[in-house]
Amino acid sequence: MRILHHLWLSPQCRKVRIVLLEKKIEFELRVEKVWERREPFLALNPAGEVPVLVDRDPPLFARHPRESAEVRRLVAWFDRKFDREVTENLVGEKVMKRFLGLGEPRSSAIRAGLKNVHAHLDYIAYLIERRKWLAGEQISLADFAAAAHLSTVDYLGDVPWNEHEGAKDWYVRIKSRPSFRPLLADHIPGVAPPKHYANLDF
Amino acid sequence: MRILHHLWLSPQCRKVRIVLLEKKIEFELRVEKVWERREPFLALNPAGEVPVLVDRDPPLFARHPRESAEVRRLVAWFDRKFDREVTENLVGEKVMKRFLGLGEPRSSAIRAGLKNVHAHLDYIAYLIERRKWLAGEQISLADFAAAAHLSTVDYLGDVPWNEHEGAKDWYVRIKSRPSFRPLLADHIPGVAPPKHYANLDF
Repeated sequence: MRILHHLWLSPQCRKVRIVLLEKKIEFELRVEKVWERREPFLALNPAGEVPVLVDRDPPLFARHPRESAEVRRLVAWFDRKFDREVTENLVGEKVMKRFLGLGEPRSSAIRAGLKNVHAHLDYIAYLIERRKWLAGEQISLADFAAAAHLSTVDYLGDVPWNEHEGAKDWYVRIKSRPSFRPLLADHIPGVAPPKHYANLDF
Repeated sequence: MRILHHLWLSPQCRKVRIVLLEKKIEFELRVEKVWERREPFLALNPAGEVPVLVDRDPPLFARHPRESAEVRRLVAWFDRKFDREVTENLVGEKVMKRFLGLGEPRSSAIRAGLKNVHAHLDYIAYLIERRKWLAGEQISLADFAAAAHLSTVDYLGDVPWNEHEGAKDWYVRIKSRPSFRPLLADHIPGVAPPKHYANLDF
């Protein structure tokens, strides 16, 4: 939850409150008596001034530039490499081609996708043996990008989870997050998901 | 409300959906069959691709650079000039000084604040005669910044609204927005607001 440390009658705080409400972004108010110069507040803002907005939601790009670079590297890995090697070959051929009226799926592409997915699942397992989440100790956009791709392939039943326990353990954790549930409830017209798709214990 | 134009099984769309939910930002989903190449959708994104997120909330800084510059100019006007000439002299002297333990209010400062506020109310009326909102035809951060300052001075009963009908008409419009209500419900310990403060028809 976001917390806005504020003070009554501070126009700067009031401006931020109006903006958050106009944008329908949830937050809680906490009065900070700045003259008390509380240590935990000074740790948030050494200037000792309000407003201070603390966002306890996971930062998408990590807090430190080094980790942030790793997040970006892995987001590109999944949005480019995985997309080209797996998603396009499976979801693209089997589903999108039909929607787009681009003809029959090519079996050579599907074979390539089914083969390529193993290397990516191995890579996820490799990372997860060394870190809690893909890019480090905190969940990040890297996990969301990877899970977004895998979830579309999983909808077709084309992720060989049982041969990749390490990757599966990571996906179980992502899958159980409330933010992931609406994706598991998706139903694509004319394409039914396999039984395990929405199952948290698959 | 935000609308996310998406397509089933698009990993790019799924990534954005997860992120919006992780950040607890509200949105509605709308399926966009990109192969239909709908004109209204192409107007949103000439590439004809999803995801497209449309935020119908008022943009804080206007859509065009020229108006955006005017928003910034007026935000600076209120956060610097109005703050120094009015807010500091009234709210600063009468309330903040006591909280901060900085001694008695200086009556010369209060006299200056009470005098200066007239020029700013005149300026607001001048702008509002020419535009719907302070920086142009759309509400913007300029209105929120100005209203945030004026609301703190109004809490002390120091805004001579009845001598400035033009500014008052604008403030009535701001005051009736849902985002403004929590500010009108604020009660500062030891400082009661005047009767008209929370009144929408003052």
